[in-house]
Amino acid sequence: MRVLAFLDGTLAAPDAPQIRVDDLGLLRGDGVFETVLVTGGKPRELGPHLDRLARSAAMLDLPPIEIAAWERLCDQVIGEWSGSPEFVLKLVCTRGIEGDPSATPTAFALANEVDPKVLRARAEGVSVITLDRGIDPGLAERAPWLLLGAKTMSYSFNMAAIREAKRRGADDVIFTAADGSIFEGPTSTVVLVRGRTLYTPPSDIGILPGTTQAALFRSAEKAGWTVKYEPLRIEDLYEAEGLFMASSVRKLTRIHTVDDRALPDSKAVYGELMAAYEGEY
Amino acid sequence: MRVLAFLDGTLAAPDAPQIRVDDLGLLRGDGVFETVLVTGGKPRELGPHLDRLARSAAMLDLPPIEIAAWERLCDQVIGEWSGSPEFVLKLVCTRGIEGDPSATPTAFALANEVDPKVLRARAEGVSVITLDRGIDPGLAERAPWLLLGAKTMSYSFNMAAIREAKRRGADDVIFTAADGSIFEGPTSTVVLVRGRTLYTPPSDIGILPGTTQAALFRSAEKAGWTVKYEPLRIEDLYEAEGLFMASSVRKLTRIHTVDDRALPDSKAVYGELMAAYEGEY
Repeated sequence: MRVLAFLDGTLAAPDAPQIRVDDLGLLRGDGVFETVLVTGGKPRELGPHLDRLARSAAMLDLPPIEIAAWERLCDQVIGEWSGSPEFVLKLVCTRGIEGDPSATPTAFALANEVDPKVLRARAEGVSVITLDRGIDPGLAERAPWLLLGAKTMSYSFNMAAIREAKRRGADDVIFTAADGSIFEGPTSTVVLVRGRTLYTPPSDIGILPGTTQAALFRSAEKAGWTVKYEPLRIEDLYEAEGLFMASSVRKLTRIHTVDDRALPDSKAVYGELMAAYEGEY
Repeated sequence: MRVLAFLDGTLAAPDAPQIRVDDLGLLRGDGVFETVLVTGGKPRELGPHLDRLARSAAMLDLPPIEIAAWERLCDQVIGEWSGSPEFVLKLVCTRGIEGDPSATPTAFALANEVDPKVLRARAEGVSVITLDRGIDPGLAERAPWLLLGAKTMSYSFNMAAIREAKRRGADDVIFTAADGSIFEGPTSTVVLVRGRTLYTPPSDIGILPGTTQAALFRSAEKAGWTVKYEPLRIEDLYEAEGLFMASSVRKLTRIHTVDDRALPDSKAVYGELMAAYEGEY
């Protein structure tokens, strides 16, 4: 089951060609996206997702995102959906056709089933390796043209990093700086547990502000946890009492192994955090 | 005038939708490309372009590029072309459809007229600014998952850098490292002239090996120039007797201004180098 609609309300066949070869989203990865989890007919954290889409679009000098129009588009696609009660809604906005000065963005929403591999990762946890992201924590502020912290469609190196992890027998990646600072996963935010405190790196070092991580922090605080945005280092991962990847579709995924080091069993903490998080919806 | 054909020989309408929304080239910028200049019915440096396409594809773990099939595709599209004698041939190969384990790459060639802005840049030269690329010269070797030196479709930051140049009143960009090393332009190779020697940075620092720069070096050597692959620094640009951007469609473009500093008039050197370069074809 899949549903595709464009921002103007046109429903279209997801298995048929819909995009021109000279769309800059294709030729240059020049566009922005969001991935939203829909459960029981409701898109989770839609406001933060659309705010982040708007922020990414602004970083790329794309035309402003009209939040209300995207909300209508999401409503429409969710209304057309007749598959599983939990599904994925991908929102995409590209710069449009190359060389056309009056080009308007190519903007669509695509609903799709959750990948079974994601369901398995949620249940079983994952192993990760740390890989050098090649940037320093001050770069995002110094060089905004590098688009660090924008959710662009130029994700080929994120995909390459995950392939590198699989080559090394792991499932996923946590990116680090040369100085040992922790950034983020290729498609997730890092959350670390120490005592009754949750930690995640501050987004101004050039990482994507996590919508799922923010929702988790909000609900965990209500449940009595302390939450902190603080720089983390590789050694912190190795000594974590609990380590998680937060992302919309995977929700909170337990990391049981980092760089071949087994972490302490965090199933109890995971259960507690997930209860708080799911209580939000 | 435009001509589009897919690698299987299918001709298609370039102004009609041809690509699915779930093509990974679109969703993730996950693919590779080349841009070839065709003059008088002949693609320039097609061998080096296809070799580089194959190298980029290998860096992305894409299926091997079948050189002979791409040569046939280029022949076909060039045969169909009835526009200007000089035109642009773009070659694109993406990872194909998301989530399909038997997905084959989406592979096509698109012929298009040369952008008039490029013709003006060739005639008048350009002004550039230097911008931090945020990486160090050892990173490419240390972190191959970052795909430095692969010509991927994840080019959104290259486009953002050029927009930043225009905001600052310049035409284009030369990327630098934090230590002042020179990398490349967002879509070009840097060539510097000092006396009777041409310099360009070595590609193993994480830049794309330039097909046009290589052809220029080959022809300039025959014409008595010395050519060197050596690290360059920002100060070298400011003190250059001649400074050029090499790329397939712009050929060799004079840089008359770097970071608001006017360079010496290099029209004579440009004329000499262009005579050698054009003598190849």
